Amino acid sequence: MNVDIGNALSAVAAPGISRAALERLDEQVADAHERIDAGMEAGEHGYAALNLPNRTDTDEIRVAVDRVTGPDTSAILTVGIGGSALGAATITDALNDADDPEAIYLDNVDPDWLSATLDRLDLETTVLNVVSRSGTTAETLANFLVVRETFEEAGVDWTERTIVTTGDDGPLRELAERHNLPSLAVPDGVPGRFSALSAVGLVAAAVCGHDLDALLRGAAAEAETLTGSLFECPAYAYGATTYALDARGARTNAMMPYAESLETYAEWFAQLWAESLGKDDLGQTPVRALGVTDQHSQLQLYRAGPRDKLVTFVTVQETAARPIPDTDVDDLAYLGDASLGDLLDAEFEATEASLAAAGRPNVRIEIDRVDEFELGGLLYGMEAACVLAGELYGVNTFEQPAVEWAKKATRGLLGGGEFAEAEAVAEKTELRVER
Amino acid sequence: MNVDIGNALSAVAAPGISRAALERLDEQVADAHERIDAGMEAGEHGYAALNLPNRTDTDEIRVAVDRVTGPDTSAILTVGIGGSALGAATITDALNDADDPEAIYLDNVDPDWLSATLDRLDLETTVLNVVSRSGTTAETLANFLVVRETFEEAGVDWTERTIVTTGDDGPLRELAERHNLPSLAVPDGVPGRFSALSAVGLVAAAVCGHDLDALLRGAAAEAETLTGSLFECPAYAYGATTYALDARGARTNAMMPYAESLETYAEWFAQLWAESLGKDDLGQTPVRALGVTDQHSQLQLYRAGPRDKLVTFVTVQETAARPIPDTDVDDLAYLGDASLGDLLDAEFEATEASLAAAGRPNVRIEIDRVDEFELGGLLYGMEAACVLAGELYGVNTFEQPAVEWAKKATRGLLGGGEFAEAEAVAEKTELRVER
Repeated sequence: MNVDIGNALSAVAAPGISRAALERLDEQVADAHERIDAGMEAGEHGYAALNLPNRTDTDEIRVAVDRVTGPDTSAILTVGIGGSALGAATITDALNDADDPEAIYLDNVDPDWLSATLDRLDLETTVLNVVSRSGTTAETLANFLVVRETFEEAGVDWTERTIVTTGDDGPLRELAERHNLPSLAVPDGVPGRFSALSAVGLVAAAVCGHDLDALLRGAAAEAETLTGSLFECPAYAYGATTYALDARGARTNAMMPYAESLETYAEWFAQLWAESLGKDDLGQTPVRALGVTDQHSQLQLYRAGPRDKLVTFVTVQETAARPIPDTDVDDLAYLGDASLGDLLDAEFEATEASLAAAGRPNVRIEIDRVDEFELGGLLYGMEAACVLAGELYGVNTFEQPAVEWAKKATRGLLGGGEFAEAEAVAEKTELRVER
Repeated sequence: MNVDIGNALSAVAAPGISRAALERLDEQVADAHERIDAGMEAGEHGYAALNLPNRTDTDEIRVAVDRVTGPDTSAILTVGIGGSALGAATITDALNDADDPEAIYLDNVDPDWLSATLDRLDLETTVLNVVSRSGTTAETLANFLVVRETFEEAGVDWTERTIVTTGDDGPLRELAERHNLPSLAVPDGVPGRFSALSAVGLVAAAVCGHDLDALLRGAAAEAETLTGSLFECPAYAYGATTYALDARGARTNAMMPYAESLETYAEWFAQLWAESLGKDDLGQTPVRALGVTDQHSQLQLYRAGPRDKLVTFVTVQETAARPIPDTDVDDLAYLGDASLGDLLDAEFEATEASLAAAGRPNVRIEIDRVDEFELGGLLYGMEAACVLAGELYGVNTFEQPAVEWAKKATRGLLGGGEFAEAEAVAEKTELRVER
């Protein structure tokens, strides 16, 4: 990926960063890079994620996947939530076309939606992919139990079409061993939201026939750029700029890809950013947006609302040619000289310029096309940007302690033990206004 | 809908609002209500939207829809963007089940995605629904021209299956007259983002067989509650609370329904809030979230990040029973006593309480179930809340002037005339960091 931070400069935008401040920040980047480099070298928790391009064994993934797939495979149903779903979904939603097996993600416990999803699947040709590091994630295990029962009730042997990705022990590991299921490891030292380039993110892509090695090569090419200077490394340029803008008031970061196929990528980014940096009362709030659609929804706010936002565009250099037919309506004749891709490009450039003209900071991330290599680079680049930002904020990028309270309360509410958190739920302060 | 603002009180949360401040705010609400009531009475621009439950002619919509649908209708393809798509999409995504015609929205100009969408449709049984007030919206007209050509190339007569919703004049109105297409009016005085309860939002719902009258009845029941006090009107309680919290530092509003079928509703809300209130450097930034999924993505930030957020939950009182099968894994046995609906409910209550325990403000919106009546009430309630908030902010709720710059620049870039905005695009400040 390439990054253009020109529209984040104080010469253009407020909040913005001056070139002098960028030079000073680059010294902090050099220090942070030393820390990151040492963490990678030692395979430390979290930093280890940045080694995945050279560590993930794609042969092992393909061998496991080959045991449960065949030429008639129609769907890959992944049961997982958060980092166990979003990386994989980002990759298949970006790369799948109509001929590939459909990739579906059970990442919610809504009963109506689950039933509707299962009802429409041909279970005989569906591969089941269960992902949970601990093997005890409530949502994932509840969904898995329901899905397994559905297979059994349909007379379809789930043990012949299930692949498991989990930690070294726990209920899912035991299940895999008991039923001799193909299984893969959630890599040590890699938090879920940083695991897209491991088996966690790649099983579904493998089932759909995508080139895992090209994904890793794209990531490795990005890893090559990790140096001590934001001026030489697109990932660090992005991480440092967002940190500096947040400090100057851009508390919100709207991630706005100009490609429908990257809609899920924006969700993946939102998890990466929120869980990694949102702690100690710090952290920029990620907002998921989509070009051009959200020009007709969010642009008014981005351009004329509070000056507390950065908009990050992702733009794809090569798009398909799909000419817009001529029309005899005078007012629309200009469309007939263009393709849909031209219109998309013009809308992107116009929106970017409209924010700059209003002094609103924005950053452009460019990828050549939506393919394995470029996508691998984008995901790796954003992860490295996030790790850098975490160093600059001085937070513990790789933990997410604030979600534990609700997990305990949920378990207590369902009778899974005694938890003070569950008792606190009953003490809710009410001020009800009813129809 | 019912609203519970107990967790937004300063006794619970910071930022929070004291009961005394709420009492004072209620005087402003009374004044604002007078203004709103007078606007509704006079049918003034924007305020007129709140009259739709008593104004929309559902017979007219059904008659128009009957001309293009039949028992074999498999899909309804809506070509529109922003307010011309999101209201309709909210309704069909909430209410459709597997037996209904598929509702698809072409609300982007991505050529790969458009081609993939058209390729998989059975055009012979697809109804086309083109929506644009002006009849000149670039994205909508470009997509329409491509779709029309695709029908023609497939030898399918588009004039027999196209319905148009547009203003009194313009290219789409002329098209409808020339080809004698069934056509409906975008109602006067109703901005797109407030038009869900008019033909703009209801054509697709009618094609999918939903009860338009129940949608309007639900909205009318909510309209009945519009009084001069936030303590008596759920919509005003919500609008006033969000305004007061924004003033106290909750600059972001995360809309988090606990129902997969309401995911699009959160997008609709985000447009309503952003375009209506995002002006004059004011306006709360809407964020789209989804329970329980985003507990594993955004909750860390909401609970431990900056104290600049309100989380708005939408919870559905009745959910389907789908028991979780028993398991012999001790650590998971507690799940076997519950249904997926129980788990969903427990996760919602736990998440709400976890934010309160951390002193983070949140509001609960309750609907009984996801059906026409309740959904109509929810949409109307949020619109009324938004209009009230606009009065309290003192902004022009019903305009969106900041999007014009990019529209002119786009047109200029494509050779549709001379625009200074298009020339500004070329002057971009660059600071590129390349791989």
